[in-house]
Amino acid sequence: MGVSLVCTGCGEQVDDEKALRCPGCDGPLELPEVVGGRPGPRVAGETLIERYKDFFPFANGRADLSLGEGFTPLVKLDGLGKRLGLSSLWGKNEGANPTWSFKDRGTLAGVIHALESGYSRIGTVSTGNMAASVAAYGAKAGLETVILVGRGLPREKLGPIAMYGARLIKVDGDYGRLYYESLWLAKDRDIAFINSDAPFRVAGSRTIAYEICEQLNFTVPDWVLIPVSAGGNFRGIARGFREFFLSGLIDKVPRLMAVQADGCSPVVRAFEEGSPKVGRFDSPHTVAHAIENPFPPSGNEVLRLVRENGWSCRAVSEDSILEAQRELAMEGLFVQPASAVSLAALKDAVRDGLVESGQSAVLVLTGSGLKYTAVFGQHDLTWEESTLVSLGDALDRR
Amino acid sequence: MGVSLVCTGCGEQVDDEKALRCPGCDGPLELPEVVGGRPGPRVAGETLIERYKDFFPFANGRADLSLGEGFTPLVKLDGLGKRLGLSSLWGKNEGANPTWSFKDRGTLAGVIHALESGYSRIGTVSTGNMAASVAAYGAKAGLETVILVGRGLPREKLGPIAMYGARLIKVDGDYGRLYYESLWLAKDRDIAFINSDAPFRVAGSRTIAYEICEQLNFTVPDWVLIPVSAGGNFRGIARGFREFFLSGLIDKVPRLMAVQADGCSPVVRAFEEGSPKVGRFDSPHTVAHAIENPFPPSGNEVLRLVRENGWSCRAVSEDSILEAQRELAMEGLFVQPASAVSLAALKDAVRDGLVESGQSAVLVLTGSGLKYTAVFGQHDLTWEESTLVSLGDALDRR
Repeated sequence: MGVSLVCTGCGEQVDDEKALRCPGCDGPLELPEVVGGRPGPRVAGETLIERYKDFFPFANGRADLSLGEGFTPLVKLDGLGKRLGLSSLWGKNEGANPTWSFKDRGTLAGVIHALESGYSRIGTVSTGNMAASVAAYGAKAGLETVILVGRGLPREKLGPIAMYGARLIKVDGDYGRLYYESLWLAKDRDIAFINSDAPFRVAGSRTIAYEICEQLNFTVPDWVLIPVSAGGNFRGIARGFREFFLSGLIDKVPRLMAVQADGCSPVVRAFEEGSPKVGRFDSPHTVAHAIENPFPPSGNEVLRLVRENGWSCRAVSEDSILEAQRELAMEGLFVQPASAVSLAALKDAVRDGLVESGQSAVLVLTGSGLKYTAVFGQHDLTWEESTLVSLGDALDRR
Repeated sequence: MGVSLVCTGCGEQVDDEKALRCPGCDGPLELPEVVGGRPGPRVAGETLIERYKDFFPFANGRADLSLGEGFTPLVKLDGLGKRLGLSSLWGKNEGANPTWSFKDRGTLAGVIHALESGYSRIGTVSTGNMAASVAAYGAKAGLETVILVGRGLPREKLGPIAMYGARLIKVDGDYGRLYYESLWLAKDRDIAFINSDAPFRVAGSRTIAYEICEQLNFTVPDWVLIPVSAGGNFRGIARGFREFFLSGLIDKVPRLMAVQADGCSPVVRAFEEGSPKVGRFDSPHTVAHAIENPFPPSGNEVLRLVRENGWSCRAVSEDSILEAQRELAMEGLFVQPASAVSLAALKDAVRDGLVESGQSAVLVLTGSGLKYTAVFGQHDLTWEESTLVSLGDALDRR
């Protein structure tokens, strides 16, 4: 493949396409910026990589490895948008992916990279969306796949990963260290760890931005709100808009908002304290489990992007997350709590005057509500009862 | 709208676009066959109705009512196909829809019909996929939505429906009668019941066939295997292929196979017994809950289509359903058990010589595996354990 990577921390060029973090400063790596690319003509059944081939260093789109990821709906949320005084509000529904989260985009790119770089195994460290995604694409590619999870993961969370036949290892020890340990162990082994902010996973996340631009006919919204966990998806989306801007496809870059939950908000805390670095967040706890990452490996880079671009960064309360999840469902989109943080933050930002009346916004809805059904117990869900005989009367009551 | 419907039983023309079954013989109704239609040019963000507008009697595609349904991936299943000796095998992954099942196609068509016919409420009788779908689209359209479910439905099944804010009524009484009762009650009320074989729901299901034709560049596979519950989806897909054939878009119609589970196979039983009519199936019980319909309202029509066209119809064992579900996951597609019956039937048909070596087939995979996670307990799912210190050794074991 012969692509060089660039360190997001020190800016060094790294001429090892297999590298996952900077050998110098340990910063996350990324692909060089692509300028002058063009999305291809619209072709039935094309993969994301085929459509955006100018933006990936791959020889071919590897349709044989695709499960049909991406090309997700951008759904107009008219009721909510109107209530918030916005000119337009959309939800980018990533729950319509093959394993029902945005992770599939980066997993496909990561698997192609792994195969083109000569790996015979892939793996990841995850407890949820990413584990299922890597297991599914490993199965599709016929690659041995290793999923590392924490020792305490309950059986009902293991099921959706184990179904795909991946090798699942429950690891006893500090789960936070597992991300770094996996990178260290991968060095001497032939396992491509497609972790949360691996360069090609982040490259795959750019396609969310590319698609939003295309779906809005190359105009851009004022705001794009993105739930932040490890930081890889935020980095990818930021890069995607920037590349389309530098390629002359859009005339400005939208303002991005990095959103976390109050119960685990290491990036927001560093931003508000004016710290140069993101520190570990003690005792994280939030209903938005999928973004409960106390020490995000790309946190510093998200912080830098937000500061340099004058973007925004905020955390939201548990109650507001549940309320937002319900409000999105009432517009037809049942998302996981970690996705609903985007709407919760938008509402707060409108209230605070940061997002202004008449502006437009896109919510990145990262995954399906079916991913976390334990949440039903926290909602006030109601139903009525009737007999068959009295059903007519029940229907006549409005 | 001014469209006439046609009875699938007696062939009578019914000039009431609000009718749900034949006033004469009580047979299910359908839209008149469309000949000479053409799919429109490919446009970003178009709805199914916009793309196939020649095939729907709607004045416009109502993008405002869409959640981005349809346009689901047709995934090549190379490993499975090869093991079965087929030239090609594909899975049409309907789990990538907005509420994660094929129902969204017909629900969109049903909601547009309801609005164009002047209804102010919609509803359905369902315990699963269809209930969630109608609740979601009702929410999107801002319509009062009534979902009728059986009294015994457990809380965890109510959650994914109730989240959308629909009016949910648990009805005490024979659940099988509820379908017919709802039609009767709907007559004097302004509720459009978009039930399992409502004319416009069936019309929406045609788009599965249209898409398969487009995705295969207007060639068709030898076989298309379809799980059968009420029979509406089978009818829609059959009609879709026929219309594309009559419109000169494909040069033959594939052979369809109607698939049920041994534990609830009223159509297969009638077929094998040579009965003219489908009778009630006593004490149904199968892991494929989503197709556990003991008295399918479009069963007679499925039976007639299979006989008249020389197609096929078969039931599969519980063990084979679970095995097929696992095999599909091992190719990257985690589907609900009711979808896996298609693969189970294909394997049986290959073994019996009905599907021949070198032929091609499409499996219609109706819904997401996340819809029914209780099934994990019935699979032999395994994992390993390791400490952080011994993880390297664990990874070195292959």
